[in-house]
Amino acid sequence: MYGSGEFNIDAGRDHRTGVPEVVIAEGKTDEQLRDISLEFIERTGKVIISRLKGDRKDVLITALSERFPDLRIQYEALPGFLSAKRRDCPERRNGGRVAIITAGTSDIPAAMEAELISRESGCETLSFHDVGVAGLHRLFGPLKKIREWGADVLIVAAGREGALPTLVSGLVNIPVIGLPVSTGYGLHGKGEAALFAMLQSCSPIAVVNIDAGFVAGAVASRMASRCSGSRE
Amino acid sequence: MYGSGEFNIDAGRDHRTGVPEVVIAEGKTDEQLRDISLEFIERTGKVIISRLKGDRKDVLITALSERFPDLRIQYEALPGFLSAKRRDCPERRNGGRVAIITAGTSDIPAAMEAELISRESGCETLSFHDVGVAGLHRLFGPLKKIREWGADVLIVAAGREGALPTLVSGLVNIPVIGLPVSTGYGLHGKGEAALFAMLQSCSPIAVVNIDAGFVAGAVASRMASRCSGSRE
Amino acid sequence: MYGSGEFNIDAGRDHRTGVPEVVIAEGKTDEQLRDISLEFIERTGKVIISRLKGDRKDVLITALSERFPDLRIQYEALPGFLSAKRRDCPERRNGGRVAIITAGTSDIPAAMEAELISRESGCETLSFHDVGVAGLHRLFGPLKKIREWGADVLIVAAGREGALPTLVSGLVNIPVIGLPVSTGYGLHGKGEAALFAMLQSCSPIAVVNIDAGFVAGAVASRMASRCSGSRE
Amino acid sequence: MYGSGEFNIDAGRDHRTGVPEVVIAEGKTDEQLRDISLEFIERTGKVIISRLKGDRKDVLITALSERFPDLRIQYEALPGFLSAKRRDCPERRNGGRVAIITAGTSDIPAAMEAELISRESGCETLSFHDVGVAGLHRLFGPLKKIREWGADVLIVAAGREGALPTLVSGLVNIPVIGLPVSTGYGLHGKGEAALFAMLQSCSPIAVVNIDAGFVAGAVASRMASRCSGSRE
Amino acid sequence: MYGSGEFNIDAGRDHRTGVPEVVIAEGKTDEQLRDISLEFIERTGKVIISRLKGDRKDVLITALSERFPDLRIQYEALPGFLSAKRRDCPERRNGGRVAIITAGTSDIPAAMEAELISRESGCETLSFHDVGVAGLHRLFGPLKKIREWGADVLIVAAGREGALPTLVSGLVNIPVIGLPVSTGYGLHGKGEAALFAMLQSCSPIAVVNIDAGFVAGAVASRMASRCSGSRE
Amino acid sequence: MYGSGEFNIDAGRDHRTGVPEVVIAEGKTDEQLRDISLEFIERTGKVIISRLKGDRKDVLITALSERFPDLRIQYEALPGFLSAKRRDCPERRNGGRVAIITAGTSDIPAAMEAELISRESGCETLSFHDVGVAGLHRLFGPLKKIREWGADVLIVAAGREGALPTLVSGLVNIPVIGLPVSTGYGLHGKGEAALFAMLQSCSPIAVVNIDAGFVAGAVASRMASRCSGSRE
Amino acid sequence: MYGSGEFNIDAGRDHRTGVPEVVIAEGKTDEQLRDISLEFIERTGKVIISRLKGDRKDVLITALSERFPDLRIQYEALPGFLSAKRRDCPERRNGGRVAIITAGTSDIPAAMEAELISRESGCETLSFHDVGVAGLHRLFGPLKKIREWGADVLIVAAGREGALPTLVSGLVNIPVIGLPVSTGYGLHGKGEAALFAMLQSCSPIAVVNIDAGFVAGAVASRMASRCSGSRE
Amino acid sequence: MYGSGEFNIDAGRDHRTGVPEVVIAEGKTDEQLRDISLEFIERTGKVIISRLKGDRKDVLITALSERFPDLRIQYEALPGFLSAKRRDCPERRNGGRVAIITAGTSDIPAAMEAELISRESGCETLSFHDVGVAGLHRLFGPLKKIREWGADVLIVAAGREGALPTLVSGLVNIPVIGLPVSTGYGLHGKGEAALFAMLQSCSPIAVVNIDAGFVAGAVASRMASRCSGSRE
Repeated sequence: MYGSGEFNIDAGRDHRTGVPEVVIAEGKTDEQLRDISLEFIERTGKVIISRLKGDRKDVLITALSERFPDLRIQYEALPGFLSAKRRDCPERRNGGRVAIITAGTSDIPAAMEAELISRESGCETLSFHDVGVAGLHRLFGPLKKIREWGADVLIVAAGREGALPTLVSGLVNIPVIGLPVSTGYGLHGKGEAALFAMLQSCSPIAVVNIDAGFVAGAVASRMASRCSGSRE
Repeated sequence: MYGSGEFNIDAGRDHRTGVPEVVIAEGKTDEQLRDISLEFIERTGKVIISRLKGDRKDVLITALSERFPDLRIQYEALPGFLSAKRRDCPERRNGGRVAIITAGTSDIPAAMEAELISRESGCETLSFHDVGVAGLHRLFGPLKKIREWGADVLIVAAGREGALPTLVSGLVNIPVIGLPVSTGYGLHGKGEAALFAMLQSCSPIAVVNIDAGFVAGAVASRMASRCSGSRE
Repeated sequence: MYGSGEFNIDAGRDHRTGVPEVVIAEGKTDEQLRDISLEFIERTGKVIISRLKGDRKDVLITALSERFPDLRIQYEALPGFLSAKRRDCPERRNGGRVAIITAGTSDIPAAMEAELISRESGCETLSFHDVGVAGLHRLFGPLKKIREWGADVLIVAAGREGALPTLVSGLVNIPVIGLPVSTGYGLHGKGEAALFAMLQSCSPIAVVNIDAGFVAGAVASRMASRCSGSRE
Repeated sequence: MYGSGEFNIDAGRDHRTGVPEVVIAEGKTDEQLRDISLEFIERTGKVIISRLKGDRKDVLITALSERFPDLRIQYEALPGFLSAKRRDCPERRNGGRVAIITAGTSDIPAAMEAELISRESGCETLSFHDVGVAGLHRLFGPLKKIREWGADVLIVAAGREGALPTLVSGLVNIPVIGLPVSTGYGLHGKGEAALFAMLQSCSPIAVVNIDAGFVAGAVASRMASRCSGSRE
Repeated sequence: MYGSGEFNIDAGRDHRTGVPEVVIAEGKTDEQLRDISLEFIERTGKVIISRLKGDRKDVLITALSERFPDLRIQYEALPGFLSAKRRDCPERRNGGRVAIITAGTSDIPAAMEAELISRESGCETLSFHDVGVAGLHRLFGPLKKIREWGADVLIVAAGREGALPTLVSGLVNIPVIGLPVSTGYGLHGKGEAALFAMLQSCSPIAVVNIDAGFVAGAVASRMASRCSGSRE
Repeated sequence: MYGSGEFNIDAGRDHRTGVPEVVIAEGKTDEQLRDISLEFIERTGKVIISRLKGDRKDVLITALSERFPDLRIQYEALPGFLSAKRRDCPERRNGGRVAIITAGTSDIPAAMEAELISRESGCETLSFHDVGVAGLHRLFGPLKKIREWGADVLIVAAGREGALPTLVSGLVNIPVIGLPVSTGYGLHGKGEAALFAMLQSCSPIAVVNIDAGFVAGAVASRMASRCSGSRE
Repeated sequence: MYGSGEFNIDAGRDHRTGVPEVVIAEGKTDEQLRDISLEFIERTGKVIISRLKGDRKDVLITALSERFPDLRIQYEALPGFLSAKRRDCPERRNGGRVAIITAGTSDIPAAMEAELISRESGCETLSFHDVGVAGLHRLFGPLKKIREWGADVLIVAAGREGALPTLVSGLVNIPVIGLPVSTGYGLHGKGEAALFAMLQSCSPIAVVNIDAGFVAGAVASRMASRCSGSRE
Repeated sequence: MYGSGEFNIDAGRDHRTGVPEVVIAEGKTDEQLRDISLEFIERTGKVIISRLKGDRKDVLITALSERFPDLRIQYEALPGFLSAKRRDCPERRNGGRVAIITAGTSDIPAAMEAELISRESGCETLSFHDVGVAGLHRLFGPLKKIREWGADVLIVAAGREGALPTLVSGLVNIPVIGLPVSTGYGLHGKGEAALFAMLQSCSPIAVVNIDAGFVAGAVASRMASRCSGSRE
């Protein structure tokens, strides 16, 4: 009933909005995921999939490779992020610069999702991990490097109390996007406390949903692309 | 005990972060507000105050004018936004372009706060109001003009179900900041539903807290300043 | 202690309310489910079961078929919807027309539950899937066909930010039922954000609970049956 | 800045969706309310306003009457519902039948809002009040009359535990819309408990937001108009 | 470290409060459960355990039987309720009468827990299941029998919208205890909606926590014991 | 439209359920309150009203006294509880004994509402106030007196952390009804924390909604009446 | 009924727990407040009252002064904190040292409540205000002074995102008590976000309820008294 | 990409704050956990890990022992707490005294985590388990012993309604830290009710997050170390 080719995909989104459409694996059956992926490759030359974990990845890669033997496939295990492109699918490059900081080790998967979609949108990225708020001295070095690199926008990922983006935004004049992560425990410990705190931040930050690395990366890419566009 | 001149204000924030500090009138006594304001003017040549309503405004203006007879004072009643500057306080201009759209009439105060802080940060602004989601045809004209104007970033304010930023972000390649507004009623009707929806948006948007016009404007200004800096 | 035939089923509900009773498999043991099902078939000639997944389906079908060898059994895997009818159980047909739209692939199971119960109640159905809000252009074609078909009522299923029913209801004069779906992640990401947004919708929609495909279909069927009754 | 005639009103909504647009007085200043109202009357011959309480009503009526001396104005104090129409504005009549039941006295304002918008949309209405769930015997008489009258749809308003719509829907084959009302106290006592209960109802009902009399009436009117359209 | 005999059990609670202490299996390791059980049997001649599911039951029974070969063990699988008594442990009988009604099949486990603890406290019980609120006619028979039996107190278990206790309490003069059950789905669908509705009930009911069959039974037993004590 | 005599009051509830109906003043207009009150007096010889504060009380008493010059009116200011009875309205006496304990001074209004409705239902009452949990020694005296008095049921009112009912129920074999009160501040400080804690109580208590003195008193009265009935 | 001298006050708490009992004015009538205060002075020589605002203060002071002409009365307006002592009531001094830091001006009232109760418990205090997290440089000076002063415990008051206690606790080895304050707006903006963040803090802090200056001061005093006791 | 030695660990935290850093196993992959642990041992001579359960423990111990054959490893299964120290890593001893009480058996794992971190910070500990609030008599013995031992601070762990810390704090002058535990069921039954109640406690307690044994122990250690430091 929901066979290959019948999906109503939005193949023009990439062109229209500057960020490629990403298929979320969660909530779809293996069959749906395969058919949507094939449709995307057929019509746009590539497909990008997020939150693809465990065996499902292997099943999917096998199916895609059978139909398109020339696919270049890249997969990052921590965020479960897969991109599959035909040989002739052009690499995108726009010169935008997206910097990313994480507060702790557990924030890396969400941050990597942001980083990967930023690159897929054509931006350059620079990441620093484990720059926690419980030991402030670890923060200043990375911030200095980020300024020198000339970041157009700065994504700061943090779980628990989510204080890091607030701190960072008080120290720089680069726009900051807060990415709350579902680490923590107890009351509102699945990233909610971090999200609430970022929304209440004393220093100005824009926020995305918990673990929404894709959204952080997509918004950051639009910003950075715009800046780099002006640079040219 | 908390007399004039004793406040520990952050006079360098403007220079450090690119956005002037804004004093929130709510939660402060009249005396505190007056003393903080005088301190800011003394040290930076200006003070900007948000959420200043009713009689408190008149009391404050009188007190400030007595001490500083050369103040230029501007006040917008809907958001309760006041700026007071000494004659020699330089106007800031950086060429950044911040566009603003509201879904309905009730969203205007929050949107104006965003607009005013954008201007105080040196950006140009372009606003369209009442572009509701219940009648889609009203949206396309403003979007066209915003594109032609060359907006660097787009703030979309909406209450109720908060669908407008989602729609807009699916149609443009400009970074979109969703500004949820505390209109609505019933379950999560003080802007929470709008905020939740924006966080779950299918198209990428960064979000600020409910009625956080200041934050939306501050983040947007940093972005736009950055782009315009690249333009030069 | 709770043997076959002892269940206090409401065999007259179908006749009284125009919609067949549906047994929810969740929260019942296999024994309870079997005994209730047998009781229904015994007394009404059929049984309809929702949210029946995995092995439980096979166990149940075997048990029912043994007792009633003439059963016609239909099963849809995505929503886990099973109907089992004796040969002489009359097909119901009332001419009501229920249209269904989904925002994304993940919304299909809930939408199918609504569709199947509509058909069981005697209505005709027309469905369009994947008509997302992030790419508006995909919406207009289906809406046009639904109008031409003469839908009596329109069910719109959406997860994430749940904006689609709001959009649709602003464009048609058909009554719209919003069906929030438990897709999404992060804050209120199990369909709550979609539900809250639909309750706050700027354009008038009636709402059912998250994933409540049965309820959406049952209410829609009552409406459509009523309209078609008037048509005759 | 936001002067008369500049509002971006959706004058075609009535024609497009079958239900007149209603201006919510809450969240608008007196000036905004007046200007929007004048704009509506100018372009459509009428304006309908909800949640208009106290002095604001008198201020508005005076302003409207000055500009349009031929206005027919109707005002119901309990819901704060005002309609103002020019003499030549045609009365609408479509033969749809909307029945309304309230559980208690405190539910009447929301129910009246639903009733009034139903009439403005061209439907006939029949209301029964105070049919509480704590004394079941009071329910059966009204239900019998509603059936005999031939209601196309039934709005059931209830606060506190919100059980009445569930009961009613188990006894009829008319589509039921549950209208939760902000009566009650303590935990989730502003209508939330009623709303939650209606969403979980064992018998099928569609639901609107707390105190959303307008939405209940608007959806009901679309349904009833459709049925009556089929009757002709 | 936490060996047998070291637990600080409250062996006198039964005598002091009229209701035997019940050990909740959840949240304890197998070792803790065994040691506490042995301690109870040692000091009071019996142990009663709730929420004991799956293999844990068999492990425990084996361990207890080894140490006390004369144990009489009773186990009900649906609620996971086990009582183990030495031969010489006196049966309690006080003549109190506790009636129990469930709205649906899924409510039976919680209701059985209430029933079993009532019996362990010395009361007689009378239960009716599946007396749903969606088909009122099923309710009147059981209520009549309960009145004739002379119930001292009435426990009404319901999930989903939890309307049944409200209905029942409006029809009788027996004290009613509402027992919300974790059936349902979507918003507040783990019994919360039922609990909230019972707390808001128009007719007077006292409430216990979701699935708190033990508490409902314990409070009911105290009441009924008191009444029957007066009868003697 | 909603004139005197038209209310659909449930005059038989007192007889049917053993507890008189109580009209809640909140959420009704002065006119509605007056008309409902007159209707009750007309048909049952009395009316009982709760949550009647300030001037509304005087307005109502004047109106009732004019129509029924022989009314005996009693009013308690703290809970805002009024009873008005015609001379020939018989006093009810059933010998049930309801004891009431409050944790602090702020809990007295809710406790008094429970006490007054218990008396109106024919029970005797015994109250002890300010028996806080922060100083345990204050508790033992009152508990001893309550036991000696022979209380059939015990209502324990507490705000803040609501620990008192838990303590009490561990020390007696009388059924305990927890009455959470809306004292406190900060997170869940309007009585919610007390309610949640009572629902989780380690010792068995039945609970009513926050500030629901009426419900506590009504359920307690049914229990006590039952016990005293058995005593005769 | 609740006359002077009848209150069941806990006059020995001060001696038993090391912290004087504080009467919360909120939730008590003027008469209750007066009678409790008189009772405390009568039996302990003093009374301490918190959250006493506006006219209520003057009414109370007048009543207390009439009965006890020798009272020394101190009142701090920001937190509404009053202490009234007879001449012969001994001053307490124990050498404990409680330091207090606030993030912003709006946090001062709660912090002052903590400071005042610390002094009433016999400790010395040292406060620094307006040490916000958006400008880190303001923090280091106060921390240095606090270390040099030899603080036994450190209370950190913060609203909004509540990040300051987390930062501070990562920089010192003094125990830190987080005091969340009800400043902020939008989602969880009444101090909840600050509380949640402090509970999730990466660096160890103990937390009290929102605006619970009394609790913070009382716990801190116990700690500091203990340390200073060891110093002697 | 995230190999051994690349983690940005805060090796100086122990020295700076008086409490060793603890690595939370949850939310990290086995590889990350191993590399961080090795890094810690390399640089500080030890690593402490919490919430390490099941097979992960064995995998980790094997890896650590291979690299550092001289490790002394201690593991407590209930809290999943592991410490691994090189032979030459000095034992810390500071003479602080931390007492710990649990309400029930299920609270032991969180309490043990607090106890173990207290010891790792150099304090002595004294624990009493199962001192429930439903049988008050069990409390007085342990409290007496704790006073005699000279505890500097008292951690009270409780789930369900969380009343025990409130009771204890009203009876002693030792500072009390409430540790809510995720036992319970139904509404807010994962420790939230206990946390909320502790925050609202009538007697002063400082609180940590649910199951935050580490935080309770760390704050208590800082306090006790300070007191013992003064003792010397």
